[in-house]
Amino acid sequence: MTALTRETIIERDANDPLARMRERFDLPDGMIYLDGNSLGALPHDTKDRIRQLIEDQWGLDLIKSWNVHDWYHMPLRCGAKLAPLVGAKANEVVCADSTSVNLFKLLAAALANRPDRKVIVSERGNFPTDLYIAEGLTGLLDKGHEIRLIDDDSELADAIRDDVAVVMLTHVDYRSGRMHDMEAVTKQAHDAGALMLWDLAHSAGAVPLDLDGAGADLAVGCGYKYLNGGPGAPAFLFVAERLQDSIRPPLSGWMSHSAPFDFDWKYAPAEGIARNLCGTPPLLSLAALEASLDTMADVDMALVREKSLALGDLFITLVESRCAGHGFTLVSPRDATRASQVSFAHPDGYPIMQALIAGHVVGDFRAPDILRFGFTPLYTRYVDVWDAVDVLHGIMESGSWDQPVFHERAAVT
Amino acid sequence: MTALTRETIIERDANDPLARMRERFDLPDGMIYLDGNSLGALPHDTKDRIRQLIEDQWGLDLIKSWNVHDWYHMPLRCGAKLAPLVGAKANEVVCADSTSVNLFKLLAAALANRPDRKVIVSERGNFPTDLYIAEGLTGLLDKGHEIRLIDDDSELADAIRDDVAVVMLTHVDYRSGRMHDMEAVTKQAHDAGALMLWDLAHSAGAVPLDLDGAGADLAVGCGYKYLNGGPGAPAFLFVAERLQDSIRPPLSGWMSHSAPFDFDWKYAPAEGIARNLCGTPPLLSLAALEASLDTMADVDMALVREKSLALGDLFITLVESRCAGHGFTLVSPRDATRASQVSFAHPDGYPIMQALIAGHVVGDFRAPDILRFGFTPLYTRYVDVWDAVDVLHGIMESGSWDQPVFHERAAVT
Repeated sequence: MTALTRETIIERDANDPLARMRERFDLPDGMIYLDGNSLGALPHDTKDRIRQLIEDQWGLDLIKSWNVHDWYHMPLRCGAKLAPLVGAKANEVVCADSTSVNLFKLLAAALANRPDRKVIVSERGNFPTDLYIAEGLTGLLDKGHEIRLIDDDSELADAIRDDVAVVMLTHVDYRSGRMHDMEAVTKQAHDAGALMLWDLAHSAGAVPLDLDGAGADLAVGCGYKYLNGGPGAPAFLFVAERLQDSIRPPLSGWMSHSAPFDFDWKYAPAEGIARNLCGTPPLLSLAALEASLDTMADVDMALVREKSLALGDLFITLVESRCAGHGFTLVSPRDATRASQVSFAHPDGYPIMQALIAGHVVGDFRAPDILRFGFTPLYTRYVDVWDAVDVLHGIMESGSWDQPVFHERAAVT
Repeated sequence: MTALTRETIIERDANDPLARMRERFDLPDGMIYLDGNSLGALPHDTKDRIRQLIEDQWGLDLIKSWNVHDWYHMPLRCGAKLAPLVGAKANEVVCADSTSVNLFKLLAAALANRPDRKVIVSERGNFPTDLYIAEGLTGLLDKGHEIRLIDDDSELADAIRDDVAVVMLTHVDYRSGRMHDMEAVTKQAHDAGALMLWDLAHSAGAVPLDLDGAGADLAVGCGYKYLNGGPGAPAFLFVAERLQDSIRPPLSGWMSHSAPFDFDWKYAPAEGIARNLCGTPPLLSLAALEASLDTMADVDMALVREKSLALGDLFITLVESRCAGHGFTLVSPRDATRASQVSFAHPDGYPIMQALIAGHVVGDFRAPDILRFGFTPLYTRYVDVWDAVDVLHGIMESGSWDQPVFHERAAVT
C-alpha cells in the first residue's frame, strides 16, 4: 500500500473517476462538509431551475403553468427519475409530502392489508420519527395493535412470527451506519406472511439499492440527504407494482383521485402509484428535488459505493492512527455492511463536534456520545478526509474542546 | 353614480388607496389575471428571498442554517405572521403540509375529542378534497362514523344534532363564492356540543376573518390562493388556544415532539400549536410563503374587503349590461355574503373560458358550467375589470367560442 501522506491522497483524487462530479455542486470555500447525510449540498443547476420556476413559470404563466409546464405530473415524473436509484420501476415511486407522512400512509395501508394481524415489528434504535408515526397510527386506530421492538438483529427471527402484519425497518441505522441485509430480512418477513416496509432515508443516493430484486413491498425515503433535494425536500414512497391495486391510501386527497377534475364528491382512488399522493405538492421544493435527480441521472452507483467505502476506510484508518489514545471508539462496521457514514463514540463527543465545526469541519452529533461523519462521494474528496482528520488531530492534541471557543468565520466566500 | 366609461374607471384606480400595492407583485404584461383564487401572483420580494435561501443559506451554511438562519422555527414563525389575517393569536396558527393533510390531522383529532359521537356534518358542495379526506379517515377508523352531508344551508340546523362530533365546512363555496356566517354556524355547532372546523381556503387573505371572535375551534387553509405563497405553498392550521392541550395529533412526526433532539423512541407531544406539525417542512416553499406574508403584513383587510366587493360589483354590473342576452346567469350572491370571486353559469362555459384565456383574460372553469373570476384587490385594478368584460363582450358578440382558436401569445415580456 502506498504511504498515506497528503500528497499520495491528492494523487488518489486525481485518479478518481467521480472527481469531476464535484463541479456539479456549489460548495462553500474553506468548509469540509461531512454532513450530506443530514442535508445534501446544493447542485449547481438547482439555482437556475428554481429561478425559472418562479420567474418564468409562476411569474409569467401563473395558473396556466399547471398545464403548459406540466406541474401536474411533477410528483410522478420525480418518482420515475428516482426509481433507478432504488432499484424500482418508474411506475413504482412517487415524490410527495414528508417521510413521516408517507410512512403513515404506507403503514396504515399495510395494516389494512393484514387485518387479522396486529403486530408491527421494528427496532428500538430505528430513527425515532418512524416509531412516533407507528405510535400515532396505532393510537388512532385503537384496535389493539402492538409495536414489537427488537434491540438487536439477532432478535429479528424470533420477533417476526405469524401475528406480524408488517416489518418496518430503516435500512441504514442513523447512528452506526450499519445496513440491514434487505433481501434476507424481506424474505424473513414474507416467510411469516408479513409485509416488508423499508425506510431508505440514509440509503437512497448513497448505496446501490434493489427494492424489486429484494422483493420489497413498500418503502419510503428522504429527498434532502444523499439525494441533495434541498432543505425539507419532498420525500418519496415506493409500492411494488403487484400490490398497487390492494393499497388504499387513508390520506385520500384530491391528487390521489382517479378523476380529480370531475369534482365528484365521492372518492375513487387513482390507478397505480398515483393513489398514494394526497394534496397539492410544494412545487418550489419539488422542483429542487427534480433538478437534483437530473444532476444525478448519469451517476454510476457502483462507482459511488466503491468510493464511499474507500472514503470511510481512509477516515477510519487515519482517525485510528493519528488520534490513537484519545478515546475514540468506532461505532460503524469496518466491513461492507457499513453504508456511507462513519461514526465514532467519544465521552466528550458533543464539545469535540462543536470544536470541529468551529474549525470548519462539519459533521454532526447524535446523543448520547456519537460523532457522525457522512461521506458523499459525489462532492467529497479524499483530501477532504485527510484535512478533516488533521483538524480533529489538532483539537485532540491541544485539548481545546474542553474550553470550546466558537470561532465564527468572518465570511464564507 | 358617475357614468361607467373606461375613463371614469381609470379615475377610480387613481383614487384607490390600495393601488400602490400592485407594485409589490410581478405581473405579466398583457394578461388580465382573475384567477388569484386558484394561484396567487408572485410577490416581488419572493424572488430574492428564495435566492438568498438557496445560495446564501443552503449553499454556504448548509446544515448550520437550521440554527443560524432559524429554519427550525419557520413553521411557527409563518403561523404567527399569518394569524392576524385570520383573527387568531400568534400561538394558534402554524404553517405546514398541505390543506388535505392538515384537515386529516384536525378531523382525526376532533373525532378523538368526541368519542361518543359518530357524525361529521358537511356539505355535498364542499370542496371535494375535504370530503375525500373525511371518507379516507372514517374508512381507516372503521368505527361506524357517518358523514352527514347537507345540500343547502337550510338543512344545517336539522343536521347538527347531539350525535355530531364535528361540523366541517368550507367558509367560502368554491363555485359560488358564497360565505357562511362563521359566527352563527359556529354557535350552532357549539349549541349541539360539536366542534367546529373551518376550511378557509378561499377566505384567508381575501376577506377579514375573526376565528377567535367567532369562537371557532379548528381551521385549515391554503397558502397559494389569496395568500400568494406560490404553487403548492404549505398550508396552515389553527387550533384555538383553549383546545391545544386536548388535541393529540395522529400524524406524530418528529417536528411535533416535545424534545425532538433527545432522539427518545417514545413519543411525547410538544406543548401548544407545535404538536400539530409532522415531518420536516419543505423550506423553499415555506420561505416563499413567508415572503408573501411579509408582503401583506401592513395590509388593511377592511380596505381589501371594500375594494374586493367593489371590483365584483363592477364586474357583475358590466357583464349584465354589456353581455345581456348572451345567456349568463349570476351564480354568486349580489350582497356582502359574496367573498372575493364572481361566478357566472353559462351552458357553453368551458369554450367561453378557453376563448377568454386565449384573449389573455385568465379566469377558470368549474364543472358543469361555471365561469369563475377571482378578484384580488392587492393587484387587480378597476380598469382590469373593464377590459376583461370588454374581451368577454367581444367573444360573445362574435360567437367565436364556437370555433375556439387558441392564439398563443408570441411572448409575455
